[in-house]
Amino acid sequence: MRIKKVYLDNAATTQCDKRVVDAMVPFFTDTYAVASSDFSHSPGIEAREPLENGRAVIADKLGAKPEELIFVSGGTEANNLAIKGIARAHRKKGDHIITSSVEHRSVKDTTVALEKEGFSVTWLPVSKEGFIVMSDLEKAITKDTILVSIQHANQETGTMQDIEAIGALCRKKSLFFHTDAVLTFGRVPIDVRKSNIDLLSVTAHKIHGPKGIGALFIRDGIKIEKTMHGGFNEFNKRAGTENIPGIVGFAKAIELIESDETQVIKELKCRLRDGIMKRLEVVQLNGSLEKSISTILNLTFRYVEGESVILHLDMKGIAVITGSACFSRSLEPSFVLKAMDISHEEAHGSIRFSFSRFNTEEEIDYTIDAVCNIVKKLREISPIAPDK
Amino acid sequence: MRIKKVYLDNAATTQCDKRVVDAMVPFFTDTYAVASSDFSHSPGIEAREPLENGRAVIADKLGAKPEELIFVSGGTEANNLAIKGIARAHRKKGDHIITSSVEHRSVKDTTVALEKEGFSVTWLPVSKEGFIVMSDLEKAITKDTILVSIQHANQETGTMQDIEAIGALCRKKSLFFHTDAVLTFGRVPIDVRKSNIDLLSVTAHKIHGPKGIGALFIRDGIKIEKTMHGGFNEFNKRAGTENIPGIVGFAKAIELIESDETQVIKELKCRLRDGIMKRLEVVQLNGSLEKSISTILNLTFRYVEGESVILHLDMKGIAVITGSACFSRSLEPSFVLKAMDISHEEAHGSIRFSFSRFNTEEEIDYTIDAVCNIVKKLREISPIAPDK
Repeated sequence: MRIKKVYLDNAATTQCDKRVVDAMVPFFTDTYAVASSDFSHSPGIEAREPLENGRAVIADKLGAKPEELIFVSGGTEANNLAIKGIARAHRKKGDHIITSSVEHRSVKDTTVALEKEGFSVTWLPVSKEGFIVMSDLEKAITKDTILVSIQHANQETGTMQDIEAIGALCRKKSLFFHTDAVLTFGRVPIDVRKSNIDLLSVTAHKIHGPKGIGALFIRDGIKIEKTMHGGFNEFNKRAGTENIPGIVGFAKAIELIESDETQVIKELKCRLRDGIMKRLEVVQLNGSLEKSISTILNLTFRYVEGESVILHLDMKGIAVITGSACFSRSLEPSFVLKAMDISHEEAHGSIRFSFSRFNTEEEIDYTIDAVCNIVKKLREISPIAPDK
Repeated sequence: MRIKKVYLDNAATTQCDKRVVDAMVPFFTDTYAVASSDFSHSPGIEAREPLENGRAVIADKLGAKPEELIFVSGGTEANNLAIKGIARAHRKKGDHIITSSVEHRSVKDTTVALEKEGFSVTWLPVSKEGFIVMSDLEKAITKDTILVSIQHANQETGTMQDIEAIGALCRKKSLFFHTDAVLTFGRVPIDVRKSNIDLLSVTAHKIHGPKGIGALFIRDGIKIEKTMHGGFNEFNKRAGTENIPGIVGFAKAIELIESDETQVIKELKCRLRDGIMKRLEVVQLNGSLEKSISTILNLTFRYVEGESVILHLDMKGIAVITGSACFSRSLEPSFVLKAMDISHEEAHGSIRFSFSRFNTEEEIDYTIDAVCNIVKKLREISPIAPDK
């Protein structure tokens, strides 16, 4: 088998599709006007069409109205704007925010920043599989609570929260509900009306769209305070020159997701998981077996260091990461696994595999072999492996 | 003469160069990793090279060190981060900010937002040509002043402030000095050390780079508070996945600026200005004749409505705008011209021409003819023209 490079890391899921690039290219050099200049001004008017088309495509996928969707620079900005925007605009109503202890850092760090502004934050614990407990959420609600921000799927384990139940509870208690759907958008059906979602973050580069473009759904009539000031763009909710090529690429990426693609990716994930677990002992699945996004698999290989496995896989041309990419520059164990009550030792032996449209069965089989061989060899020299 | 379309508006200056697009394309689909994941992980390491190369190219152009430059989503974010970042981080030192009354909306609206957070702001007046007066600035400084934010060149008139004098004064008074150099970067030599600049905003799309990418220079050792939270990217000053294709395009755009290009553009501007002024009476130059950026020309045609002129030029295939693009959706007269003590009537008759690498002498001559004919005809039917 001749496999040059296998991407089972963030690079896999964030590779831009060639068809997306082809769709974007003309908008760099031809229809390049600033969309906001639309008074008696042809290039500006021409630029509005791809902008509004992109907005309609993405809103439609969420069951939202186009005017409920604003473009931002990515998922991080969407999460910052949603949480700070609601907190600061509705502070008179209350100053308490509820979130989980396994959110992406752009939610986690934003809530920490708001704590310094005087807000109080509850970080809900999660179960061993990574789920929040609905009764915990209910108990955490006080008369000062204004916002609940719970992610749709987790960035390290893939565990998917029951956003419909959370949305229903928030609606009943008249709280704003934000969900970070960066990992599920385009992969799992989302209906913002059915799930009573008030704000929802998405990004293009997780579905083979370009980096530098994301969007935030803000339900009709909900007031948020801007985090980016400077003019009236995006319904006066986000200033800055519109990134028309990025928006065109985002819409194209959504259009390219075929109805059975997610099922195919899920089968690759199961193939890797089952293939490894059949051949290796003491491998532990981190996260939920059933309620998990198709693109993420997190395994702990007991008695070995995740970093060693990664280094050896890298030499075999296989790219994977430990924990979430944003965190990988640090050697601290993942705060997500820690919140799931997984020990330091187990967390250090964990590896995250990401799957994408571009992976093949052949790559998966090559990876199963590589992982099993490497882990076996590392266990042979491990001072803590029980077989020694 | 067969001219299909003449861009003398924002579209002109913001058109992406085809060579920039060519440089970016491989980074969408090939070296597409998340640059931050650089532990034992080849794709992440590959992505760091274009990131750090781009940083070095842009920093070098400013006389800055690479680690003093962080990438953001554009000029608007750079201005927001610079001003809010300094104000919020140094509030204990003082709560007073000085800026001018002709700044880009991303500075203006940001200072207004900070006023609501309890900061006090002085908006310095400008002269008839659009200059701040150094003695006004000096008088405005109080013991509570922490930051001076004055643009390098104005977005509507092109008038260039004396940033060296401002920088020297700020240094003497131990104040932070931020300048919005979005229009001058790559067009006018800038040396952040010589000019004592502490923070400086730039963007790619004003020099034929892509939209959605900009940068902020932050002098070594200066503390700012983040406006985008979520991880340690960009020296822990700006969270979010790095937009590698955008950064590659930004660096390419800088490399493409040839040493004599700005002179060529300046000659086109003078050709249009002199051509029109020779043939038309009562045309007024808004801004400075001498100290003005080569890419912008603002003229008032008395006794006519700017919007009418634009509509007629549009029918002849010539794209121009009134005032600044970000403001053109409103019919209010430009706040910049108002601050320059130009009457409502004169402001309504004003047109902004932008010049770029892609304009030709032929286009300029075609535009001179068109402008002169249109203004003459409109004046014939104007109820306020004195000749009637």
